[in-house]
Amino acid sequence: MRTVNVALIGYKFMGRAHSNGLRQAAAFFDLPYRPALKVLCGRDRAATQQVAERFGWEEVATDWQEVVNRRDIDVVDIVTPGDSHRDIAVAAAKAGKHVICEKPLANTLVEAKEMWAAVKKAGVVNLCNFNYRRVPAVRLAKRLISEGALGTIRHYRGTYLQDWIVDPNFALVWRLRKEAAGSGALGDIGAHSIDLARYLVGEVTDLTALTKTFIKERPLPTATTGLTATAGREMGKVTVDDAALILARFEGEAIGTFEATRFALGRLNYNRFEINGSRGSIAFNFERMNELEFFSGDDPKDRQGWRVIQATEGAHDFVSAWWPPGHGLGYEHAFAHAFVDFLRGMAAGKSPDPDFREGAQVNAVLDATLRSAESGQWVKVEHIQ
Amino acid sequence: MRTVNVALIGYKFMGRAHSNGLRQAAAFFDLPYRPALKVLCGRDRAATQQVAERFGWEEVATDWQEVVNRRDIDVVDIVTPGDSHRDIAVAAAKAGKHVICEKPLANTLVEAKEMWAAVKKAGVVNLCNFNYRRVPAVRLAKRLISEGALGTIRHYRGTYLQDWIVDPNFALVWRLRKEAAGSGALGDIGAHSIDLARYLVGEVTDLTALTKTFIKERPLPTATTGLTATAGREMGKVTVDDAALILARFEGEAIGTFEATRFALGRLNYNRFEINGSRGSIAFNFERMNELEFFSGDDPKDRQGWRVIQATEGAHDFVSAWWPPGHGLGYEHAFAHAFVDFLRGMAAGKSPDPDFREGAQVNAVLDATLRSAESGQWVKVEHIQ
Amino acid sequence: MRTVNVALIGYKFMGRAHSNGLRQAAAFFDLPYRPALKVLCGRDRAATQQVAERFGWEEVATDWQEVVNRRDIDVVDIVTPGDSHRDIAVAAAKAGKHVICEKPLANTLVEAKEMWAAVKKAGVVNLCNFNYRRVPAVRLAKRLISEGALGTIRHYRGTYLQDWIVDPNFALVWRLRKEAAGSGALGDIGAHSIDLARYLVGEVTDLTALTKTFIKERPLPTATTGLTATAGREMGKVTVDDAALILARFEGEAIGTFEATRFALGRLNYNRFEINGSRGSIAFNFERMNELEFFSGDDPKDRQGWRVIQATEGAHDFVSAWWPPGHGLGYEHAFAHAFVDFLRGMAAGKSPDPDFREGAQVNAVLDATLRSAESGQWVKVEHIQ
Amino acid sequence: MRTVNVALIGYKFMGRAHSNGLRQAAAFFDLPYRPALKVLCGRDRAATQQVAERFGWEEVATDWQEVVNRRDIDVVDIVTPGDSHRDIAVAAAKAGKHVICEKPLANTLVEAKEMWAAVKKAGVVNLCNFNYRRVPAVRLAKRLISEGALGTIRHYRGTYLQDWIVDPNFALVWRLRKEAAGSGALGDIGAHSIDLARYLVGEVTDLTALTKTFIKERPLPTATTGLTATAGREMGKVTVDDAALILARFEGEAIGTFEATRFALGRLNYNRFEINGSRGSIAFNFERMNELEFFSGDDPKDRQGWRVIQATEGAHDFVSAWWPPGHGLGYEHAFAHAFVDFLRGMAAGKSPDPDFREGAQVNAVLDATLRSAESGQWVKVEHIQ
Repeated sequence: MRTVNVALIGYKFMGRAHSNGLRQAAAFFDLPYRPALKVLCGRDRAATQQVAERFGWEEVATDWQEVVNRRDIDVVDIVTPGDSHRDIAVAAAKAGKHVICEKPLANTLVEAKEMWAAVKKAGVVNLCNFNYRRVPAVRLAKRLISEGALGTIRHYRGTYLQDWIVDPNFALVWRLRKEAAGSGALGDIGAHSIDLARYLVGEVTDLTALTKTFIKERPLPTATTGLTATAGREMGKVTVDDAALILARFEGEAIGTFEATRFALGRLNYNRFEINGSRGSIAFNFERMNELEFFSGDDPKDRQGWRVIQATEGAHDFVSAWWPPGHGLGYEHAFAHAFVDFLRGMAAGKSPDPDFREGAQVNAVLDATLRSAESGQWVKVEHIQ
Repeated sequence: MRTVNVALIGYKFMGRAHSNGLRQAAAFFDLPYRPALKVLCGRDRAATQQVAERFGWEEVATDWQEVVNRRDIDVVDIVTPGDSHRDIAVAAAKAGKHVICEKPLANTLVEAKEMWAAVKKAGVVNLCNFNYRRVPAVRLAKRLISEGALGTIRHYRGTYLQDWIVDPNFALVWRLRKEAAGSGALGDIGAHSIDLARYLVGEVTDLTALTKTFIKERPLPTATTGLTATAGREMGKVTVDDAALILARFEGEAIGTFEATRFALGRLNYNRFEINGSRGSIAFNFERMNELEFFSGDDPKDRQGWRVIQATEGAHDFVSAWWPPGHGLGYEHAFAHAFVDFLRGMAAGKSPDPDFREGAQVNAVLDATLRSAESGQWVKVEHIQ
Repeated sequence: MRTVNVALIGYKFMGRAHSNGLRQAAAFFDLPYRPALKVLCGRDRAATQQVAERFGWEEVATDWQEVVNRRDIDVVDIVTPGDSHRDIAVAAAKAGKHVICEKPLANTLVEAKEMWAAVKKAGVVNLCNFNYRRVPAVRLAKRLISEGALGTIRHYRGTYLQDWIVDPNFALVWRLRKEAAGSGALGDIGAHSIDLARYLVGEVTDLTALTKTFIKERPLPTATTGLTATAGREMGKVTVDDAALILARFEGEAIGTFEATRFALGRLNYNRFEINGSRGSIAFNFERMNELEFFSGDDPKDRQGWRVIQATEGAHDFVSAWWPPGHGLGYEHAFAHAFVDFLRGMAAGKSPDPDFREGAQVNAVLDATLRSAESGQWVKVEHIQ
Repeated sequence: MRTVNVALIGYKFMGRAHSNGLRQAAAFFDLPYRPALKVLCGRDRAATQQVAERFGWEEVATDWQEVVNRRDIDVVDIVTPGDSHRDIAVAAAKAGKHVICEKPLANTLVEAKEMWAAVKKAGVVNLCNFNYRRVPAVRLAKRLISEGALGTIRHYRGTYLQDWIVDPNFALVWRLRKEAAGSGALGDIGAHSIDLARYLVGEVTDLTALTKTFIKERPLPTATTGLTATAGREMGKVTVDDAALILARFEGEAIGTFEATRFALGRLNYNRFEINGSRGSIAFNFERMNELEFFSGDDPKDRQGWRVIQATEGAHDFVSAWWPPGHGLGYEHAFAHAFVDFLRGMAAGKSPDPDFREGAQVNAVLDATLRSAESGQWVKVEHIQ
């Protein structure tokens, strides 16, 4: 079996998620290639080395430009903050590498379109990793919709709620600065809701939006640990949204609401959607990620109800590779599934979904959201081709 | 339309529930007779008078013997503590009255059998009011089972949990004294579980049981208010079970567990059952009384799940007389339904379920439970005919 | 005890809810007056007579003008469709009657303001019956917020979802015609969400909205039964919204979303809100009306969670008058509570909340919503004084 | 850092779970030793080789006796069917190896006691891997109880429900044969409930039990895949219980019920317990393994409720090594946690819980259960020392 050499650029939260995902894909799934954890690349060599040892990366590097141009690298996987996605991805594509990039594809629509142009021109396999698409329960949602079990869709209700910055003393980490993160709750978590809506219902055509920054100044960080940081004495300005609210129209007759916030106390990772159609409805909440709720209007009237489906059966996508029914999966498994589909896509010469065009389409919705929040007007969403 | 005169013996918690149920039955349902709230009977005339005014009873009385022998009374409804059920019911039956009696039918199996013999001999319509049978969600459970949606039943799991006497300073009210109540959690709430099991699955043939009294002495009450009382300084002995646990075999191949306790902190009126069969399963919890959970093994494998059915549609028993779908009912409604069925039973000349025979059959299970708890042996349940 | 004579104008769905509510208030609560069900008024005498007999109204009438001017009437209660609220309420106020009016107060903001002016001028006690305010779990929500258990409120998330007109063959009943109903899902159910938001969080200052009519033509009805009707062969135009979506800003720093629809298959009466503050969060869904969910950020970090509180304890508003803990209430009970508060308000010479000013304020939000949906712009909400 | 060489005996379902657990422990946790996946041992070399490659075992072997006596092996981990546990474990202990053994410790109490005697005599670190103890939500349950948040415990309610053999055509796999599995649902899943009860509440002193085999004959298997098998044409006798029910008394005043069955349609891996004490209650269901429900009687009366705690915070055991709050874990993680504790135990020279004595104590309860089911009598549970 041919070996595929992977280089991972970035080693923190997402670096661990991707390292683990790649390794677990190889352990649990039948793959067309044998993936090798070839190079882990990060600016802090010692910290990078430590992660590399934990997950079995063969080498570490500190210069991504050198890495993406190495002859022996087949796949470049980008998990750095959004401000560097464009440069790395474009360089990797030019070097003929297949490319995976964490979401959101870029911090701006302009950059995202450049990235899509680059991989299209290079003809490389590409994936923008909106991981929630590969949760088995979400795949079941897609299957139900594709089979027509929901009929004509009328409503999408997407809320992605977290609560990790309610405390005004939480430090001003990079995710709260526009230059690094592009936007706040909107791009970080709202982007997932938008991608899921597009995946399940179709394209958003126009929207009106409201963004809000509740805490306008925060302590500058001194040292960073994972997603948090030690708060220093000096204050800095929060330059992104704490919350973003959207009303949207879809192609067809569906309408929808989106809400992304990091100020919903008690909601830890509440990535929830509900979809109502003429024949059925579905609901999902990532905090109970192994379940999909499904209501079928086809059931006899006296026994209709929301079914709590445990998407842990062999009949559900990806599940048979893991454990028996009822032995649920966790957050990290969807990353393994992404690598499974990416490697199979390489073998088939076809990018798995969502490719960079789709990633850029999400950026188009984010872009429209920020413009609408600024103007107070309904705004058309650009259609990426 | 003919008027049916009702006499109610007892005026406290159950007195209010029956007064209200009778009045609401007449307001919301099409009935074959016009029921009249003729006499409310209680030993404390002033207190009885007060309840009578609230609900519109025409008269009050203090001597039940006189009442049950009045010419103008058609129905005698008994809601006193269990130690007086037998005498009143037998007298009423002898006087040719139709009889309703709150559960448990009697404090002892011997008394229960006398009561059943008396109404059988008199040929009067009779009902032992196990109210939970007439919750629409429970009726839906019965319908599903009758239609075979569960297939062959293998498991019954009945728990009736409350927490109102966890505090050791809660006073020694009549429900904690054997001479008045017959037994403790067993007869008060466990009897409901047993009746529901019989209703839904069939007869219990033999069982082994364990009873426990956690708090052996409590303050004697000074004044009583509703179900509680003011604790006095003197202590008295608790002579009933605080909890009762049963393993049981049913006719056919089903087996079951029962648990009744008043020491399950956080469970207020958790009358729950789960039934598993070869084709499907159902679960019910009175704390969410408008819902029935149903799992169908007939659904396609990838979309099987527990349906949370809101039993609030016109398609569900009794519901169309009340409010639109999703506008749930409360505790008291099942009492109205009992009167609806009783009056319709009178018109049809047929006792509604559960009649006194069935009530006595529950007493047979209670009796076997106490005997087994005493002996530590498996015990056969007497079959009442 | 003084008797208060009530006249009820309207006898259908809301007529039954108010008849029952008034009668149950008198049966279960200690009231300052003895309310008498004096006159039930409806245009169809026979149908009105039938309801009157069921609930014990002393008389029936067909001419509301005569009724509101009767000397012996103390309270006029209006439950007709919205297009007649103004005329009846203004006349009743002029006649010096205390007035209750079902929500929404009127079909237009202009009418609503006239009504508020009329009762203010007449100095009569007045109530716009947004019934969900008097569900015990909602009262608990209010209490928690008032006590500061949520801290500074940032998010309101109100969805009122139903599914009763998903079928395109459902007939064009009066609730789907603008001239009778004013608006569609917006005024019928969205109005409740708006009132609850105002009650719990404060005034909406400005908003942007989207309304949608999914099914534009429906069969004209032939005969009506309850909320439904027999579909005829001729088609008519639906002139109200099937769904309404709102983004809103509140006084203070809170922001919110509202959604009202009758096209959410599987949601029967899903009147749900979630509120997030700096110290805690709450959530409520009427389909589980006896529960309030509460998350306290004050709990120790390792044991924080959403508490499912059964608002069925004596410690909760209105509950001690009914049944023991865990013996839940139903839809109709909140109507009884409205009468309890209205009669107590009369005794105190003070209108209970929400009075007609508050009712008109809800109309101001509805009015702003329709204007925004028309213009696509953010719109300021008029402040009623 | 010193390297610890592990040999794993068995490679199927549990072989994969342990291989993965060991590898993940090393990737995500700070450990006192570097564990090496040295030898994977199975009778079918080709199949063993395949698993070894997936997870990175250095060597494969087919003769366990040779393996347990290898000089370079530090730890022997046993995941074969129960009938070989004793021989392997005793040999490993005699060879001075530290020993991990999957639950139940043995198929019989006699064997279990021999195993405990062997490791005690050898002075090696030992663990019987009841994996559910190391689910973070279960550890939180233990913490709450240890801190007294539940007060005096009165009730344990353990149900472990599955549904994978409801189909009578499901083949007679080894788990349905007494000679290989020892018992059926009882030892396979009921053992977990018993261990959890012991862990959380204390020792079971005596019990009465009922076992049942619903399907007495099944098709003999031809080929096996994972937990299932192809059904052949010949029939064989099922020699274990399909379901086991227990009433139990604990040291102290607690009483409990246990139920283990594979015939609860719709319950996939419903390992649930509820514990009620004088101050609080807790409930857990593995199908929602990231949640613990907790009811505190110390909360103010009007805001008491079952808190749904997501045990995914850094404040919860093991969690900080994985992902951020709300990013739940899956079935396999508890196996990693077992290796973490085992290696830390080796460093400290102390066996982690539950050691072989505790494993044998579970066998004592299983043994008492089978004896009681046979005799119909209450039976004392042997106390292992």
